[in-house]
Amino acid sequence: MDLTAYLATLRQEVETALDRYLPSDTERPATLHRAMRYSLLGGGKRLRPVLCLASAEAVGDAHAVALLPAVALECLHTYTLIHDDLPAMDNDDLRRGQPTCHKKFGEATAILAGDALLTFAFELLARATPAAPLARELAEAAGSRGVVGGQAEDLAAEGRAPDAALLDFIHTNKTGKLIRAACRMGALAGGTNEKQLAALTTYAEKIGLAFQIADDVLNVTSTPEQLGKAVGSDAARKKMTYVALYGLEPARAKAAALIAEAQAALAPLGARAAVLVALAEFTVRRTS
Amino acid sequence: MDLTAYLATLRQEVETALDRYLPSDTERPATLHRAMRYSLLGGGKRLRPVLCLASAEAVGDAHAVALLPAVALECLHTYTLIHDDLPAMDNDDLRRGQPTCHKKFGEATAILAGDALLTFAFELLARATPAAPLARELAEAAGSRGVVGGQAEDLAAEGRAPDAALLDFIHTNKTGKLIRAACRMGALAGGTNEKQLAALTTYAEKIGLAFQIADDVLNVTSTPEQLGKAVGSDAARKKMTYVALYGLEPARAKAAALIAEAQAALAPLGARAAVLVALAEFTVRRTS
Repeated sequence: MDLTAYLATLRQEVETALDRYLPSDTERPATLHRAMRYSLLGGGKRLRPVLCLASAEAVGDAHAVALLPAVALECLHTYTLIHDDLPAMDNDDLRRGQPTCHKKFGEATAILAGDALLTFAFELLARATPAAPLARELAEAAGSRGVVGGQAEDLAAEGRAPDAALLDFIHTNKTGKLIRAACRMGALAGGTNEKQLAALTTYAEKIGLAFQIADDVLNVTSTPEQLGKAVGSDAARKKMTYVALYGLEPARAKAAALIAEAQAALAPLGARAAVLVALAEFTVRRTS
Repeated sequence: MDLTAYLATLRQEVETALDRYLPSDTERPATLHRAMRYSLLGGGKRLRPVLCLASAEAVGDAHAVALLPAVALECLHTYTLIHDDLPAMDNDDLRRGQPTCHKKFGEATAILAGDALLTFAFELLARATPAAPLARELAEAAGSRGVVGGQAEDLAAEGRAPDAALLDFIHTNKTGKLIRAACRMGALAGGTNEKQLAALTTYAEKIGLAFQIADDVLNVTSTPEQLGKAVGSDAARKKMTYVALYGLEPARAKAAALIAEAQAALAPLGARAAVLVALAEFTVRRTS
């Protein structure tokens, strides 16, 4: 099996589903729908939906059962990017080399597009199976005890002295919990048992942290073309990062160790976890 | 039965449940949780949760089964107020006579508090019964084809020539759909049959429109003390309103007619709908 080609297939399925499920940009309110589609369909690694599909496949026979939660995850992730980019938050003008949503459509529309995508994620889950566990998983990962809470502490931490416990709190919540939810939601949609769910949870927690460390490293080492935005912005903003706290090489080594641990956690799933093994590498090798 | 006292009891149950379900303001991230509680617990008519409880009672034996959806509705409603008040949106400094969330906690925290309350609404519904229909009802009412879509068109309409069809679109979506969802969610939680659901849906659509017309009237006729914010702000902002479109007295007459129609729609529910009959009056008699 050619894993790289297979991952590309999964990503293509996600792209097709995103385009199909999202309201058309001719449907009223057209500008809002255009803004939602602009941010959602403007590229991206589709890491969370692909993790969701691959997790479903690792516990069951097929990944199609996880397509609705996969699309919901990307809607939710995209809303966090739109709101994080706002002037009152990170104030970013570029995302994936393109103007951010508020630069393109104005601040009010960007706030509303984020709100609508967040809401739409739960509309999709309400139609998925098993709806209640999936919605609960996403809501717990995304709320004030998850992604939103991590972003709140991240904003509050800017300019503060480096603090390992705080940095862990921020990244566990801001990035880790949604990646964890992606794997667990795929597993739930795929009909997981407890042992499989535990293995996928450990895997997800490790790659989530590796992913964030890699992100901090890339902010220092990439070119603007690779990153799709300004390089060194974390340092300029005095953001607390793993690189600032531990140094560049130790951060890289930590990410590599986490990837190996994540892959080891998949042992109980056997050969069906091959896609997830490959995805673990992908989380740190990406350039944008 | 003293209906006024009973409505006060329902509102008190909602207050207690809101306080109990919301994360404590000592839980990290504490500022975010304080902002959520500030906006959610700072008063308000609790119209949507009370409609939800009364609708459950009108189709079943008890309203307690609808407490989770009732709290979810108020969380969702409060998030829309927080985001609508933002500088990029309506730019309001006061809400219920108190500083708006962004005035008190800053813009970033207000955006996040709204996001967290929206997410929390679906977390609550994931624990409610029947979870999937309830979540679908709320998501469809709240998203780009509901509340968020109405707000998007409302912002785009400011300063435009009055247009009855556009005004109806805005209010149906921005205000009407959540009131409709409140009644339908209460009915679903209460174990409604199709006929009861249809009656409650008609009732809700009529009072939703009456509510918005009353809001436009109050913006002209209230004192700042009654309204908790500046009076005449709609006119100053050249907002399209029912008063601007039809005049003050015809708007009042229209609201009264809608209330009568809403009450008539409850006939199939019999005496158990007495609370809803009283609530219909309440939607237009309120002063804030």
